Amino acid sequence: MATAGKVIKCKAAVAWEAGKPLSIEEVEVAPPQAMEVRVKILYTALCHTDVYFWEAKGQTPVFPRILGHEAGGIVESVGEGVTELVPGDHVLPVFTGECKDCAHCKSEESNLCDLLRINVDRGVMIGDGQSRFTINGKPIFHFVGTSTFSEYTVIHVGCLAKINPEAPLDKVCVLSCGISTGLGATLNVAKPKKGSTVAIFGLGAVGLAAMEGARMAGASRIIGVDLNPAKYEQAKKFGCTDFVNPKDHSKPVQEVLVEMTNGGVDRAVECTGHIDAMIAAFECVHDGWGVAVLVGVPHKEAVFKTYPMNFLNERTLKGTFFGNYKPRTDLPEVVEMYMRKELELEKFITHSVPFSQINTAFDLMLKGEGLRCIMRMDQ
Amino acid sequence: MATAGKVIKCKAAVAWEAGKPLSIEEVEVAPPQAMEVRVKILYTALCHTDVYFWEAKGQTPVFPRILGHEAGGIVESVGEGVTELVPGDHVLPVFTGECKDCAHCKSEESNLCDLLRINVDRGVMIGDGQSRFTINGKPIFHFVGTSTFSEYTVIHVGCLAKINPEAPLDKVCVLSCGISTGLGATLNVAKPKKGSTVAIFGLGAVGLAAMEGARMAGASRIIGVDLNPAKYEQAKKFGCTDFVNPKDHSKPVQEVLVEMTNGGVDRAVECTGHIDAMIAAFECVHDGWGVAVLVGVPHKEAVFKTYPMNFLNERTLKGTFFGNYKPRTDLPEVVEMYMRKELELEKFITHSVPFSQINTAFDLMLKGEGLRCIMRMDQ
Repeated sequence: MATAGKVIKCKAAVAWEAGKPLSIEEVEVAPPQAMEVRVKILYTALCHTDVYFWEAKGQTPVFPRILGHEAGGIVESVGEGVTELVPGDHVLPVFTGECKDCAHCKSEESNLCDLLRINVDRGVMIGDGQSRFTINGKPIFHFVGTSTFSEYTVIHVGCLAKINPEAPLDKVCVLSCGISTGLGATLNVAKPKKGSTVAIFGLGAVGLAAMEGARMAGASRIIGVDLNPAKYEQAKKFGCTDFVNPKDHSKPVQEVLVEMTNGGVDRAVECTGHIDAMIAAFECVHDGWGVAVLVGVPHKEAVFKTYPMNFLNERTLKGTFFGNYKPRTDLPEVVEMYMRKELELEKFITHSVPFSQINTAFDLMLKGEGLRCIMRMDQ
Repeated sequence: MATAGKVIKCKAAVAWEAGKPLSIEEVEVAPPQAMEVRVKILYTALCHTDVYFWEAKGQTPVFPRILGHEAGGIVESVGEGVTELVPGDHVLPVFTGECKDCAHCKSEESNLCDLLRINVDRGVMIGDGQSRFTINGKPIFHFVGTSTFSEYTVIHVGCLAKINPEAPLDKVCVLSCGISTGLGATLNVAKPKKGSTVAIFGLGAVGLAAMEGARMAGASRIIGVDLNPAKYEQAKKFGCTDFVNPKDHSKPVQEVLVEMTNGGVDRAVECTGHIDAMIAAFECVHDGWGVAVLVGVPHKEAVFKTYPMNFLNERTLKGTFFGNYKPRTDLPEVVEMYMRKELELEKFITHSVPFSQINTAFDLMLKGEGLRCIMRMDQ
């Protein structure tokens, strides 16, 4: 490890200001400090959250910044106190962490780590409040503790899942965020039984991952709900048996779903973040046993409203964050689901470009084309 | 069984019109028809729901009517097709039934039987649309399929739980409705873990039964929330460790609870039916794992409102009906909990009067005195 303890110079895609194309720059990456790990990123994908914070509409702008949080890499070196990882380990960086010491980490149910819970405004390391990235000595901000749009990055050990080194990083890198979020919402939270009926609201990557979870759980009827009819064809690969476009109906979509399922679906998973879809997802579940799970992040001022009788008739509403997966504890097993061919990841990967063409990935996302675009760092 | 197949003349308390004192009358009780059972009631209690439909404010008035639905009795005779019960069996009538044949009865989770789900407007038997009660040949209406304010009543077999004949009917009769509703909300739905913190909103009989469930589950901190400070003393018998009166605070009670529990309670059970309490019960549970359960029935037009982020931070909101107990399948085991001295029923029974003094029981309920008043039919 000739590079351990030294500053590494490498390529990174820097967002200098909101909404402007990223620029590939040579950056200096400082060595990892206590409880930190420097990771060589091999593959990174683009998630909608990167685009959201790059556009920075209605948020505190944090620039210049190195975005990126879905990725796969190999540990280059570790800082003081890191005992769980050694150079050469294969890892998935995660935008939210697991300290293994707080009340949330100790709870069987929560993954909302007190120490390392996602923080979108912080652009520095949690240990010393400094950035590890500089260009000519001037700091460049981090993003959600991962900043994977760089050949090397520094990450808190609590935000790295050590995975099977046999797993192909160009595939499993998509498990860092969106795919696990949707998959876990269904498998860990909605928990549909074999033979049940599941509705998925929003057929983007997260919604299709939720659908993949329904397929894996053995749901016999999977209803996709989306405003874009073109989504049905692709969704069929994920097990979609029925498609409902709310625009095709004059009545609220929850009523349409209740009618077509003779009383309601067994489970609904909401992946759009639109408040009307959230309410519809809850109100379309069957009384007596229906469970709706909210995944999509709403506008700050949106208010969820429903008649309390909808709850009293034995419906359940739950929300989830990162599919309720604890990053370090649970992601290795999600990788194994892929290795056992239970979980199919290839169908999420619709594009692949060299890292130097990262702006093409942004263009595809902005046009709504494809699901995941993988960037190869060595090109 | 000299009376089988014959009309029985007996005493019943008849509500001739809304809000007027009940009148003890001699009524004729017809023999049970197909799938019906005639029950000799030994003890009946008064529940707030009886008073609510006796007052009949803002509802369709159904009079003359024989109210009453919390009771214990013995099977006198059975109608055609009844195979699960025989004369002499000890039973608890239940206002909602279990046909054992519909999708809800076949579901492990639901107790909202399609056939025998509570119907407050129906004043006749479901089989033939007729009443089994008459006075001089003129029909008197039934109430929620039970009408236990009568020495004899006719009930659908699906609304009768066959219980241990050793169980004292003057105690376990309170399991017909309110006590099971609160108890099951905690034990079956909220499911607090040993050592957890539970908030109970509303310390009437249902709320105290929910509290009894928290005590039985081993909760270490049980916070009672009520607008009446006098409720604290009684609640201590049910395990109440802290009392919060929303009137004592200028900030919303959910904020008070979050502060006093360092982030929120593990479970909350709402037993008032007031919309602000419902919202508070949800918003006071801890992120990551908190579960709130709604029991109290709200005003029809009340709307539940909250920010969706409260769900996305991994909180769960569920509603329950009759504590999620399936009447025939589950109530016998609740009776056994009492027989094993795990469940304490005596503390719910604060008054006892002869049946002839039923209006005294109404007065006590209207004044908010005591929890349950048992009426002895043989006096």
